[in-house]
Amino acid sequence: MGEPGTLVALLHGPDQPGLVARVAGWIFARGGNILHADQHRDREAGVFFQRVEWVPSFTGPDGDGAAGVESAMAEFRQFAGPLGMAVTLANSAERPRVAVLVSRADHCFHDLALRWKAGEFSGDLVAVISNHRDLAKAARSYGLPFHHIPVTARTKAAAEARQLRLLRKLDVRLVVLARYMQVLSGDFLAGLARPVINIHHSFLPAFAGGRPYHQAHARGVKLIGATAHYATPELDDGPIIHQDVARVTHRHGVDDLIRMGRDLEKRVLAQAVRWHLESRVLAYGKKTVVFD
Amino acid sequence: MGEPGTLVALLHGPDQPGLVARVAGWIFARGGNILHADQHRDREAGVFFQRVEWVPSFTGPDGDGAAGVESAMAEFRQFAGPLGMAVTLANSAERPRVAVLVSRADHCFHDLALRWKAGEFSGDLVAVISNHRDLAKAARSYGLPFHHIPVTARTKAAAEARQLRLLRKLDVRLVVLARYMQVLSGDFLAGLARPVINIHHSFLPAFAGGRPYHQAHARGVKLIGATAHYATPELDDGPIIHQDVARVTHRHGVDDLIRMGRDLEKRVLAQAVRWHLESRVLAYGKKTVVFD
Amino acid sequence: MGEPGTLVALLHGPDQPGLVARVAGWIFARGGNILHADQHRDREAGVFFQRVEWVPSFTGPDGDGAAGVESAMAEFRQFAGPLGMAVTLANSAERPRVAVLVSRADHCFHDLALRWKAGEFSGDLVAVISNHRDLAKAARSYGLPFHHIPVTARTKAAAEARQLRLLRKLDVRLVVLARYMQVLSGDFLAGLARPVINIHHSFLPAFAGGRPYHQAHARGVKLIGATAHYATPELDDGPIIHQDVARVTHRHGVDDLIRMGRDLEKRVLAQAVRWHLESRVLAYGKKTVVFD
Amino acid sequence: MGEPGTLVALLHGPDQPGLVARVAGWIFARGGNILHADQHRDREAGVFFQRVEWVPSFTGPDGDGAAGVESAMAEFRQFAGPLGMAVTLANSAERPRVAVLVSRADHCFHDLALRWKAGEFSGDLVAVISNHRDLAKAARSYGLPFHHIPVTARTKAAAEARQLRLLRKLDVRLVVLARYMQVLSGDFLAGLARPVINIHHSFLPAFAGGRPYHQAHARGVKLIGATAHYATPELDDGPIIHQDVARVTHRHGVDDLIRMGRDLEKRVLAQAVRWHLESRVLAYGKKTVVFD
Repeated sequence: MGEPGTLVALLHGPDQPGLVARVAGWIFARGGNILHADQHRDREAGVFFQRVEWVPSFTGPDGDGAAGVESAMAEFRQFAGPLGMAVTLANSAERPRVAVLVSRADHCFHDLALRWKAGEFSGDLVAVISNHRDLAKAARSYGLPFHHIPVTARTKAAAEARQLRLLRKLDVRLVVLARYMQVLSGDFLAGLARPVINIHHSFLPAFAGGRPYHQAHARGVKLIGATAHYATPELDDGPIIHQDVARVTHRHGVDDLIRMGRDLEKRVLAQAVRWHLESRVLAYGKKTVVFD
Repeated sequence: MGEPGTLVALLHGPDQPGLVARVAGWIFARGGNILHADQHRDREAGVFFQRVEWVPSFTGPDGDGAAGVESAMAEFRQFAGPLGMAVTLANSAERPRVAVLVSRADHCFHDLALRWKAGEFSGDLVAVISNHRDLAKAARSYGLPFHHIPVTARTKAAAEARQLRLLRKLDVRLVVLARYMQVLSGDFLAGLARPVINIHHSFLPAFAGGRPYHQAHARGVKLIGATAHYATPELDDGPIIHQDVARVTHRHGVDDLIRMGRDLEKRVLAQAVRWHLESRVLAYGKKTVVFD
Repeated sequence: MGEPGTLVALLHGPDQPGLVARVAGWIFARGGNILHADQHRDREAGVFFQRVEWVPSFTGPDGDGAAGVESAMAEFRQFAGPLGMAVTLANSAERPRVAVLVSRADHCFHDLALRWKAGEFSGDLVAVISNHRDLAKAARSYGLPFHHIPVTARTKAAAEARQLRLLRKLDVRLVVLARYMQVLSGDFLAGLARPVINIHHSFLPAFAGGRPYHQAHARGVKLIGATAHYATPELDDGPIIHQDVARVTHRHGVDDLIRMGRDLEKRVLAQAVRWHLESRVLAYGKKTVVFD
Repeated sequence: MGEPGTLVALLHGPDQPGLVARVAGWIFARGGNILHADQHRDREAGVFFQRVEWVPSFTGPDGDGAAGVESAMAEFRQFAGPLGMAVTLANSAERPRVAVLVSRADHCFHDLALRWKAGEFSGDLVAVISNHRDLAKAARSYGLPFHHIPVTARTKAAAEARQLRLLRKLDVRLVVLARYMQVLSGDFLAGLARPVINIHHSFLPAFAGGRPYHQAHARGVKLIGATAHYATPELDDGPIIHQDVARVTHRHGVDDLIRMGRDLEKRVLAQAVRWHLESRVLAYGKKTVVFD
């Protein structure tokens, strides 16, 4: 979020006149100063969306301490509820804890870790979980705990249970699938109840499913793509956060597509993670609103 | 603007707490409904910028007629003045009148005329002015009056005076230089006191001045560009509204660059004109804020 | 092709050692000078592809006249046959005749006509054929004969027969579907036996079929696309020549997608037509080789 | 180059008829098989450029050993000399040795090292040289020797002499300046007599010199860029190999430009290094031919 001491609210609910003024007025009346406010209306769905970032004022006995922030957040929730708005609130003083799930491919993992080290994310990587041991050393080189949880068709349910316990114990707020080659079950996603961002190596909805670069090569497309989306029980069908493409020609074989795709996957996943951690993404139905 | 019966205000002035809330509150208190509100702070310069679009309420004896709109606009100006904010107000019921200045090249002209015919602009082309006769027939094929005002080094001052009289008589609110190959004098721009959008066929500030594709070819760049900017007395140095580039290789000669550049010029100029006519662009100093 | 007095051969056939040297040697031995030569191997399919452009030498009694060119082309065919290569030969002195099929949307039509007038194509538009009368006047403004051939479900076979007779009579070498809203039957395509280029308003294979911008909006993609491909009996499944995309956000409604898509469709279709007319495209199976 | 046991020749010299046929014929006559051949003519300069990649045949007593390759290369040089062509020959069995010069910024360094580890380059990093100690540990984590050679205004000549001795001792064929913040002297470049690739963090020729992102922000451009070029004694004026841009808005401060620029710099530099190591780049005058 880049702004110390700020709150960010993501709101959405049935559209009605005056919402922009009410939210701004509420904050202003309590001495807060709005730094950014962005909103969107989906007219077909009749839904209003807003992201508002402000510096709250703390005039009570708590001063500007954590209790003041907690109290400001609670008050805002009480204000938004009667308006029929669902609210997600983030406090810039708290950096969300992020777990990265990987398999053998390391490009997205290194990219996320280096960006985290470079300070590009408003959150912290706290664990690497993998069904293989390949990236154990790389994880540790970044000072990241590595957890090996093997997954086979037979042990999948037990493995997901272990993952779930670990993610809860670590108080993880976001799970990033950095080319994790296992499909997460609907039960796992429901049990986790936290957002999961996946990178799919195609321009969805084209080439969903396995081996998308092979599919793209066989079809003779002139652009390849990558798609970051929230994982849902329906494979490769969750709300899309970000997509990008790169130009290819008849000269590029599948290996070239895979190499060029790595660059796309890294960029697209990192951007989606950055936006999510800055409270810029609201998912609704199969879509997202991205306040960039 | 795409919204019938709306007002759009572009505001800027010294930043101060509560501006978002005050503007939203003022509109809400008068029964208006905000459709879009976007703002920006330039922290270095300490300037606040806002674009707000709303449906005003007309409860007085004038009903929702033109007088009601005029009165709402006057009241808003009175409100914004004491806040130290400069205001530009647009009423979606009034379509700005646009003059296009051309020389011999016709690609940007056809592109603007066809987009206007297709309803892509929130304004109307009302005249084509040229220092050559080449595009007279094309202008008339779109139903556009064509004015031939020749310009030579010797007659330039007189020609600009004629242009100025014509533009005033036509009540033109925006002048678009669609590859018009004459530099407008500072006196002309000051006398006009209306925005002038120019398309320069390079990625400014690279290759300012004449024959930019020749310059680009000689330098061996791998991308060519086009830049739409507000014209100022300093040639090719006005606030940039939009830019785009296209990839070139060693295989492309100057003729290819010119051909490929036409596509860039058309798109970049049309986008800048569309944004301007939708009251999305605020120029300040050598920069612009584009609320897209 | 940009080079007067040149021949262009497009070759493809089973790969074998020495093909590059044989073709170059054959041309050189007859006094020809190669201007461009480009080749490609599809290793999986074991197919060799080549585009070679050269200035033939005419030393016989015919001098450099048409008979000399005809004879050079016949000799080249005799040379390539025993190598197992299929050959398409083009003579830069002959500009292919192109028919444009349209319905009501006019953006691709105007774009093609203006580019043709600007000299961007190595071929000539010779007819506009439509199932509606809407573009009759526009066609004539470019000096293009307009043929109205209505199509209904009941009359489709007869209408296609009329189209076919017309296209043959006009000796058309390329048919361009510039947002022509009728599916051409396999019988028509087989009877025509000439390439047909279509523009589909999505990033194929995503959103094949009808109303692709509505599909894209419903899915919440962050990029929209356009695809130029050769028409085949399988709808939207022919070899792709060119594709491009544009970035969209949650703010863009279906109308915006349609407007932004027009720009994509124009550019992508025009580029595909230009490449085809310059003998740069070889289709094989569901793919193309584009020697750009 | 991706092809084991192949030779790649980069040729350039005065254009003359028959060059394509002669080179192809020479290789074919010696039993070689051309895998790729690409050429270019600069008509203004009258220069012919070619990249040809082939599998040589070894029929002598040496079999397919190193002596056979050496002999094939020597023969090719003898063939090309009388044609007036300058030749650079590369043998896919030999991987060029690359030194990376860095200062404190680590993003390009990590990117190059990870791509090298992933097998994306046809060459090997063999040393990291820096005027600071910051990246010593990172270099060693990739198994790369780190050489600290401090540079001050007073010691620059001596430092360059040390660098030169080291680069010669290591038999380095390419030097990559991965955000190395020192200008290399003309004497150093002449003494090295090996190509040096630099990444400049702007879209050259715009914003040459220091602090280009600050310059870009002050000018209000809507795209930022990065440029990989061969270093020459004229600062930021060498032949450009690759460039790319990213879109920015008024919302992006200098810090955002720097962050977004890192992604551009990484990609553009890595692509230039990859092309160079695959013998795809020919520099002449202030330009390059890139056979991609």
